[in-house]
Amino acid sequence: MSTPPRGGPRPPVVAVDAMGGDNAPGEVVKGAVRAVREHGVRLVLVGRRAEITELLRAEGATDIPVVNADEVLAMHEGALASWRRPRSSVAVACKLIRNGDAAALVSAGTTGGVVATSTVRLRTQPGVLRPALTVALPTRPNPTILLDAGANADAKPEMLVQFAHLGAAYAHTAHGISEPRVGILTIGAEPGKGNRLARRTTEMLAAIAEGPPKLNFRGNIEGHDLLAGHVDVVVTDGFTGNVALKTVEGTVRFVLDEVRGALSSGPMAKAGAFLQRRSLRELGERVDSETYGGAVLLGLNNTVVIAHGSSRAQGVAGACVLAERLVEGRIADQVRRRVTAGGRATGWLHRLSQSEE
Amino acid sequence: MSTPPRGGPRPPVVAVDAMGGDNAPGEVVKGAVRAVREHGVRLVLVGRRAEITELLRAEGATDIPVVNADEVLAMHEGALASWRRPRSSVAVACKLIRNGDAAALVSAGTTGGVVATSTVRLRTQPGVLRPALTVALPTRPNPTILLDAGANADAKPEMLVQFAHLGAAYAHTAHGISEPRVGILTIGAEPGKGNRLARRTTEMLAAIAEGPPKLNFRGNIEGHDLLAGHVDVVVTDGFTGNVALKTVEGTVRFVLDEVRGALSSGPMAKAGAFLQRRSLRELGERVDSETYGGAVLLGLNNTVVIAHGSSRAQGVAGACVLAERLVEGRIADQVRRRVTAGGRATGWLHRLSQSEE
Repeated sequence: MSTPPRGGPRPPVVAVDAMGGDNAPGEVVKGAVRAVREHGVRLVLVGRRAEITELLRAEGATDIPVVNADEVLAMHEGALASWRRPRSSVAVACKLIRNGDAAALVSAGTTGGVVATSTVRLRTQPGVLRPALTVALPTRPNPTILLDAGANADAKPEMLVQFAHLGAAYAHTAHGISEPRVGILTIGAEPGKGNRLARRTTEMLAAIAEGPPKLNFRGNIEGHDLLAGHVDVVVTDGFTGNVALKTVEGTVRFVLDEVRGALSSGPMAKAGAFLQRRSLRELGERVDSETYGGAVLLGLNNTVVIAHGSSRAQGVAGACVLAERLVEGRIADQVRRRVTAGGRATGWLHRLSQSEE
Repeated sequence: MSTPPRGGPRPPVVAVDAMGGDNAPGEVVKGAVRAVREHGVRLVLVGRRAEITELLRAEGATDIPVVNADEVLAMHEGALASWRRPRSSVAVACKLIRNGDAAALVSAGTTGGVVATSTVRLRTQPGVLRPALTVALPTRPNPTILLDAGANADAKPEMLVQFAHLGAAYAHTAHGISEPRVGILTIGAEPGKGNRLARRTTEMLAAIAEGPPKLNFRGNIEGHDLLAGHVDVVVTDGFTGNVALKTVEGTVRFVLDEVRGALSSGPMAKAGAFLQRRSLRELGERVDSETYGGAVLLGLNNTVVIAHGSSRAQGVAGACVLAERLVEGRIADQVRRRVTAGGRATGWLHRLSQSEE
């Protein structure tokens, strides 16, 4: 991506939590500088001013604005503890957004803390039951959107039905897919397979697929199809989604380690490994979630991108670019349109769900 | 493994469902013959006698006994439909076991059908709430046991507590681990993370760890640690477990495909790929679940091994060897001892669970 042409409408401002993540503030500041210089993102850094200013000076980037916040959400801090902290860098960044001084939040801080703080301070959009943590799995040609990846450990069917709309809006905005194919993560290929939650959700999704708003519902997706690219959006509860996402990550790491081991055993293999080193590194980077810009918390009034806690500069820059793209694509408007159009359906679904419990 | 020495106690008989699986009966019969010849397993083949006899003749193995069963559980058949079929090969194999003519069942048939049929016909052991589908993940030096991998999509905390004992008995019997480390699959590293089911189960497991029977409970396991070998047994509900297992399988396939692609791009890479072909194939086979002998349904009065539906001869043979090893290791006795010793605890857990709901 190149610097946008001068003279057009000014891009939105992204508020970057400089203090969140394992490598904060050093790598976060570096990533922010990269986002500004290489991608033309407009942003403001939020955190301990003295530290950030010194880092910016070292980068020769003192023109990037800084807003002070004295406190930091610790990585181990629980959701409850974190949103009670009005002086944390995440809370101050949310305040900038509420005041209209920024349009999106990027943080590599603890997921639970960022979800809790931003949900309380930015609030869910009207009609949205719960925000959903949304990630992109590295399928080709397009990534596959998985949600909820961890915001709602105990979910209800009508929440998952909304997640289908949230995910469809995201696939449209972020990846330009006009009628995203939506599947539900469950066990078994036949309709009616799964636990109570998945079965009920499947019934509801099938019932509302005709719309409005229309939903391109394709039925069941099993674990082994998560990376097969059969659908564009996979809907599940936050517990199952988090387990599935982390299982993908752990398995990628496991297999690449095994491949490296296999490629370095025996003298012939060593020669081959030398030839392959670059291919393997590129592959590792491609499937590494860092390059995918992090998770997005969908369903709030404003855009929130949560980068991996272990993000380095590249990951932070990617998250900033994604945040800008989502704001410019008016993701919140798209979600609002879908949820409002589905309002009658949602009410009906809710009653259906209640009456059958 | 070699043929056992003559003159010792005779090994148990394994009843093999010759008609179950994508490659039945051809590959199943071949696998059975291999189990007999290479591993000294005693077995009986159950299914359409004429077909099986012809296949045995082609293998020059007409000394393997055959018991006729006219019907076959179709791969698409649901659990309910399948256990109503008393003439299916799985049902007839279960009858042999009930009559004492065999000690274990091996089938590559539809998991739902085999679970339903064998649960109804072989029955759960006294004190066991539900049988659990148990698989071995390809960690080193020992496999990691995951259960439930799909038998109980909607589970209760006291079931998961029993699964911990079932899994510990299995790790002991199948892999010789004296005090298996047990973890619970959940989201987040801190205690108290997870959905309602995981949180409640964690409380119970912590409360009963002192025993009797003693349980080496190590707390939370996240998706990215499933293949890290931190514990020997991972406990979860059948929905999450099935999603996680299949996600591992799908991700292994995805990454190996990507590696093959990466290794064959560019002229240098092609030369390297030639050198590496064998390493990659060996790796693929090692992580391929087929070599792990299939899933085991734990908690029934008799041993049931469910091979992958796509099993070929090698997979079937591995399943037969595993079934024999479990019977000889007296897995059912071990489960009984643990469940009986934990009987008081189970009753208490049940009341605890009921009262807090």
